[in-house]
Amino acid sequence: MDANPILAEVLRGNWVENRHRGAFIIVDATGNVIASGGDVERPIFPRSAVKSMQALAIFDQHAIEKFHHRTEELALACASHHGEDDHTSNVSAFLGRMGLSVADLECGAHMPTNDAARDALRKAGENPSALHNNCSGKHSGMLSVALAMGVDPHGYVEREHAVQKAVRKAVETVIGESLTEDRCGTDGCSIPTWAAPLRAWATGFAKMATGEGLPSHYAEGAQALFNAATKHPHLVAGTGHLDTLIMNAYAGELMQKGGAEGVQCGAIRSKGWGYALKCDDGNMAASHAMISGLLLKYADPNNAQRAVLEQFARQPIKNVRGTVVGEMRAVDAF
Amino acid sequence: MDANPILAEVLRGNWVENRHRGAFIIVDATGNVIASGGDVERPIFPRSAVKSMQALAIFDQHAIEKFHHRTEELALACASHHGEDDHTSNVSAFLGRMGLSVADLECGAHMPTNDAARDALRKAGENPSALHNNCSGKHSGMLSVALAMGVDPHGYVEREHAVQKAVRKAVETVIGESLTEDRCGTDGCSIPTWAAPLRAWATGFAKMATGEGLPSHYAEGAQALFNAATKHPHLVAGTGHLDTLIMNAYAGELMQKGGAEGVQCGAIRSKGWGYALKCDDGNMAASHAMISGLLLKYADPNNAQRAVLEQFARQPIKNVRGTVVGEMRAVDAF
Repeated sequence: MDANPILAEVLRGNWVENRHRGAFIIVDATGNVIASGGDVERPIFPRSAVKSMQALAIFDQHAIEKFHHRTEELALACASHHGEDDHTSNVSAFLGRMGLSVADLECGAHMPTNDAARDALRKAGENPSALHNNCSGKHSGMLSVALAMGVDPHGYVEREHAVQKAVRKAVETVIGESLTEDRCGTDGCSIPTWAAPLRAWATGFAKMATGEGLPSHYAEGAQALFNAATKHPHLVAGTGHLDTLIMNAYAGELMQKGGAEGVQCGAIRSKGWGYALKCDDGNMAASHAMISGLLLKYADPNNAQRAVLEQFARQPIKNVRGTVVGEMRAVDAF
Repeated sequence: MDANPILAEVLRGNWVENRHRGAFIIVDATGNVIASGGDVERPIFPRSAVKSMQALAIFDQHAIEKFHHRTEELALACASHHGEDDHTSNVSAFLGRMGLSVADLECGAHMPTNDAARDALRKAGENPSALHNNCSGKHSGMLSVALAMGVDPHGYVEREHAVQKAVRKAVETVIGESLTEDRCGTDGCSIPTWAAPLRAWATGFAKMATGEGLPSHYAEGAQALFNAATKHPHLVAGTGHLDTLIMNAYAGELMQKGGAEGVQCGAIRSKGWGYALKCDDGNMAASHAMISGLLLKYADPNNAQRAVLEQFARQPIKNVRGTVVGEMRAVDAF
């Protein structure tokens, strides 16, 4: 297997300690390649980076007509949220509005990603619930799909459940490729994740950004989802997170979403471009440096946007006493 | 830069999600290469993997004659311990025996690595002290060097302090190469870390295992340190850690020590071989899979040893609900 290029590295003192390889691609909706590096045909698991694609099932299965999802609920369907109050309260309210509760979520419980939310829970002596799971908004959206389809929601995370078949169909429609059982795994929140080429994920985001090549209800759904996510960047991730800060800075012009194990996807909406990036070794901080390096070059940042991107393109590394001893940084490979 | 080979990978479902590259080498004390892969001449920071080399300053500077370090104290000088009771109590007692206290440690404080120790501290509402720092045993050993040298211990972590000069000299003597300022960084515990080729670190471990090519007091010191570490494997790391379990299983025949950012070093004492391995991207779990793959092939494991190594050569990956969804595994590249 040919090695992908080094896209990020860690400097300690005056010597490079770690190297992170990866592949990236920027395309338009017709598949024209704006930029790419590494093997973009190698299938990769997109993980949470494509929650907005999965959420198109809400539109394809007419859940949107049944529940009239608020923009907060659509943003949370696209989110890997940090378990802060506005995340859990919105998910809880949405479940209640559907006549469901936290007991219907099948994502499992984990401690909030946000430090303060985690400390508050610990101090209160409480255990986290499935509401705190970063995927609880996506799962609530999937439950709305189950109810709209008129099927028993129980087991909605399973690959053969009608909900996951609908989600799979939505993703296949957007990327224009079949998802196959020989490239399938289980995500952290128990739903299936399907591998497809980096090129296909990027093309799907370009199509969602422009509507080009999509059935009209998909095009409308994609616009509604991107509008919701970029209207509520804090709901899509959380305080201090790259996705939230970048979308805030771009004020609607850029959809950005990370996925576990070093995946970054999104769309430069103002240009009609989609992008996808995967760090080969799964390191998230490295993938943050990489995507920031990519957007610095291709997303025409103004000064405020540049400031946000640069804080992730060069991340200080501190030792136990808090002294800066090195940095994680994007390399000039984009 | 040529790419090092893939030595570990992460499988999710039936598809490879992540790939980890690295380099490794096994040598004897004269530098004969038993096995190697990747670029073994590229200088790497060994981090905590060479604490036993750094501890040779205790012997070179006659601290051993002044304080008659107990075997527990020598083991802790080589350790990245987990902040469990036997770690902190032994370090505290050693400091007291030298007329020093936790206030003299300049490593900084961090939460214990061990889950139970961390939870106990949280439940007690206490903050961690420098005793809990995984490097507190090494720092105590360095303080013994300062006292034996008759210098002011204050600032012993600084590169220009007499203690760090003595440590640097000890390491240079063992690896047979100069450590240079253009390849220097600061470790997590604030002392200098120096980059040298993987080959040099492995050769140093082979010399320490055999005494070949070392001044006699270094040879005796190395034997005392390896004897101490392998007599007290729990003091060198902690409950459930690879270093502890492997050294337990090999009952004195193998010295194994990990370092931050994917470094693994050690010696197969029964064969007189030293080894060194670095995961390019710094992933520790991947480096555990890699070193286990290497030792399965070259360290002649019996059934019990094989069982320990295999639990790290193939590490299950679970999702939030605790279901096994993949594995981190060594690949057949050794």
